[in-house]
Amino acid sequence: MVCLGAASTGNVLVWPADHSHWINLKVIMKELTARGHHITVLWPSFFHKTDSSRLPSFHLEEVTVPFPTAEMDALLREFLYLSMYEKPEISLWEFSFRFYHLIMDLFSRNKILCDMVVLNEERMKKLQLAGFDLLIADPLMPCGELVAEKLQIPFVYSFRFSAGNTLERLCGALPAPPSYVPASTSELTDRMSYTERMKNLLFYSLHDFIFHQFILRDWNQYYSDVLGRPTTLCETMGKAEMWLIRTYWDFEFPRPFLPNFEFVGGLHCQPAKPLPEEMEEFVQSSGDHGIVVFSLGSMVQNLTDEKSNMVALALSQIPQKVVWRYKGKRPDTLGSNTRLYDWIPQNDLLGHPKTKAFITHGGTNGIYEAIYHGIPMVGIPLFADQPDNIAHMRAKGMAVELNFHTMTAQDLVEAVNAVIHNSMYKENAVRLSQIHHDQPVKPLDRAVFWIEFVMRHKNAKHLRPAAHHLTWYQYHCLDILAFLTVCTAVFIFSAVKCCMFCCRKCGRVIKKRKTE
Amino acid sequence: MVCLGAASTGNVLVWPADHSHWINLKVIMKELTARGHHITVLWPSFFHKTDSSRLPSFHLEEVTVPFPTAEMDALLREFLYLSMYEKPEISLWEFSFRFYHLIMDLFSRNKILCDMVVLNEERMKKLQLAGFDLLIADPLMPCGELVAEKLQIPFVYSFRFSAGNTLERLCGALPAPPSYVPASTSELTDRMSYTERMKNLLFYSLHDFIFHQFILRDWNQYYSDVLGRPTTLCETMGKAEMWLIRTYWDFEFPRPFLPNFEFVGGLHCQPAKPLPEEMEEFVQSSGDHGIVVFSLGSMVQNLTDEKSNMVALALSQIPQKVVWRYKGKRPDTLGSNTRLYDWIPQNDLLGHPKTKAFITHGGTNGIYEAIYHGIPMVGIPLFADQPDNIAHMRAKGMAVELNFHTMTAQDLVEAVNAVIHNSMYKENAVRLSQIHHDQPVKPLDRAVFWIEFVMRHKNAKHLRPAAHHLTWYQYHCLDILAFLTVCTAVFIFSAVKCCMFCCRKCGRVIKKRKTE
Repeated sequence: MVCLGAASTGNVLVWPADHSHWINLKVIMKELTARGHHITVLWPSFFHKTDSSRLPSFHLEEVTVPFPTAEMDALLREFLYLSMYEKPEISLWEFSFRFYHLIMDLFSRNKILCDMVVLNEERMKKLQLAGFDLLIADPLMPCGELVAEKLQIPFVYSFRFSAGNTLERLCGALPAPPSYVPASTSELTDRMSYTERMKNLLFYSLHDFIFHQFILRDWNQYYSDVLGRPTTLCETMGKAEMWLIRTYWDFEFPRPFLPNFEFVGGLHCQPAKPLPEEMEEFVQSSGDHGIVVFSLGSMVQNLTDEKSNMVALALSQIPQKVVWRYKGKRPDTLGSNTRLYDWIPQNDLLGHPKTKAFITHGGTNGIYEAIYHGIPMVGIPLFADQPDNIAHMRAKGMAVELNFHTMTAQDLVEAVNAVIHNSMYKENAVRLSQIHHDQPVKPLDRAVFWIEFVMRHKNAKHLRPAAHHLTWYQYHCLDILAFLTVCTAVFIFSAVKCCMFCCRKCGRVIKKRKTE
Repeated sequence: MVCLGAASTGNVLVWPADHSHWINLKVIMKELTARGHHITVLWPSFFHKTDSSRLPSFHLEEVTVPFPTAEMDALLREFLYLSMYEKPEISLWEFSFRFYHLIMDLFSRNKILCDMVVLNEERMKKLQLAGFDLLIADPLMPCGELVAEKLQIPFVYSFRFSAGNTLERLCGALPAPPSYVPASTSELTDRMSYTERMKNLLFYSLHDFIFHQFILRDWNQYYSDVLGRPTTLCETMGKAEMWLIRTYWDFEFPRPFLPNFEFVGGLHCQPAKPLPEEMEEFVQSSGDHGIVVFSLGSMVQNLTDEKSNMVALALSQIPQKVVWRYKGKRPDTLGSNTRLYDWIPQNDLLGHPKTKAFITHGGTNGIYEAIYHGIPMVGIPLFADQPDNIAHMRAKGMAVELNFHTMTAQDLVEAVNAVIHNSMYKENAVRLSQIHHDQPVKPLDRAVFWIEFVMRHKNAKHLRPAAHHLTWYQYHCLDILAFLTVCTAVFIFSAVKCCMFCCRKCGRVIKKRKTE
């Protein structure tokens, strides 16, 4: 019997993404550190350090870029304002145009960040000398895989999704039949009508077009220049040993996937810890009515006066106590049952026995905490994947959705009452929670297992499909179908010609006989 | 936090298959029994009881059929003789014709067996009253799922494969792009040339045609009659909660799969136990040369004199000692280094430190024991999936293949020497063994986990793809593509007509002006 011992400690380099992505990735890093691995994070100077600096166990290798955090924050604020307030006021074309420019700005800054690493010979030499065993990257923005390729080390992705799943499909060879696999951000489910299937197919096609036209060209050239040989972004990304996807079948609709895709959604969730004393007192004061937890996530710190007053007014009308994470100006209509907090221990609150419902923007981390603890939701999606996330939860019967732009105080009251008093929502929340907890191996342990696997074996090539060696037309067998079509056409043409020739011959003979 | 306790004990009904299939399925049954579940096996009277009767922990519910075991054995012997000796002497058409008739004979006997269960009201009532929680079926032959459907209980498959993967694809909705997923029994790998891809595509198509023409029609009618409503075999099979497939990525080429497919290959393997004293003495007498283990499986008990003498002569020429499982007449050329046994503890022998190589027919169980213990192979495939299995092992660099019909003594000697002395084979065997052992959860534990999961939750619907609700043309979006094609054609036609109209108009105006 060939046996492998416990994992030896490894030297891991991390290419992170900011905000909620980092919250999730950090959990894997912490677990790896606890298991004795050494972690170095390539930390862009414009990332928010507050959180990460609390973790002295990681070595942060700062990558200084020639633009400050404030500039990135302004970009983010512009993006939020566009999505949250301007979107319903302007045309789809104007929204798309401005959104495109924001994304392109982000990409160009990302390229500058990438320059600072891969074109900085001194830094690359230092990284080379550090002898990393593996790189873990969040491919929200390119470059992580390029660093790994330059260092000639294997790499693993920790990933939520790309719009239309372009990266997963076109670079990761993930199959996605448009007939029942809804494209991410399409807000569709796996049960589609004829027109929805058409919308899904066109959605995939549109995203493929955008990806090829506006993203691939630039990055293909960049990767080729840096590596000194003709290559593509997808060729490099396709070398990922594992794709650790931050969802699971409690959230995803069942779909085909590949052996090197592991669904580890909810890896950051854990049993609730006790609340701070003041908060526990407030929660306990709710009596049998219980509490409602309300947060629009770490990126949305405030609302307009109009919106905040409308929301506060609605919350004042429900019998539950409300714990609201809100940094903005205190709304005038705030009820005595509602308390504002700059920050809340969201997971601990959702795991509290008094918690009845969760009002959320629909970020993946928050949704998974609600699934973990079996709490039904009112979703008020704002941007990015949030509408799609809430569409998933709605389809699975665990959420009511509200439109941030059009909702009224009455809508919010009714939605909260629905998820609390219509038992269907709680039952579905508990069912999904049971599914989440009833896995052969916990998500975090699976993520760590495959990272350590790649370090133990130097790769996970036995899981990588041969699809990566095919062109798109070979993948779809179009070259073979073309040949078979030509053969069939030639055969039919020849057969028809033969028949016509025979008929003519016969006709002549008959004519001749008649004339004789 | 919603937490689930340990699995409570369940009441499990089993629809087995015979021979090596039962050897594998029995391991799951034993584990379920050890975990406190109650097992009832619907045991056809023509199955071989020797092995199963050793297991008093299962309740065998015998299903008596109006044909004896001897008749089934004769059918099997005819099949073996056709595959092993007659195949190279006769034309492909004659072979296919006789093979088809044998299969149809098996199917008609299987239908009689099915009648004895589903049309026997007394038996069905008894089964209904027993209150089973789950049925586990080997879908080598249909009926298990029909019994589950009649009893209205969930069912799980334990399956190796169907030829061309027709059942998995057409009834289980498993995607299989023909460009890199070789059809089972095609003997192709995941790296195919243009002509091989074409062969693969045609192979899939041929099997789909055969399946539809010769299998589905009959069984669709049968299932509809029994259930008293129009249905199909695939509709019923598609309700399987889980497909426990008896391979893993050490053996399979990486391919797309679905969340309700779990690859549990090698679940029957275990660390080697000590050999019987006499055998251990013989093995130890091999010195540094070590031993070669030789078996053509439980179904092939003897060879023709010519073949057995050729094989024995070859084995007498190698310096290793040979443990040969062989029930036939003792060959005249048998060397002193070779010992014949009616039965061998194959797993214990392959796990013995003295074992250098395994000569095998390429059955999946034996191959997995070799992978488990990291022993390179000489494959002499005879029938069914064996040529395909050996093609997999050859592609993964762990086996040399010989043709049973044409091989000479010299070929066998060279092949054994190659796998023992060319270190590549041993290295690859060890690599695959490491991959096999390095899984987050052992195959048997995963199989049992999902069986118990279905019993705990009454289903595993969260893993079942929505593809089951689509027709074949909806699945491939052909209805949408047809509409888009028509729209495009109408648009082009209208545009051309418009242009022509405008041109004509312009032409007339110019002509008019010229004439003026």
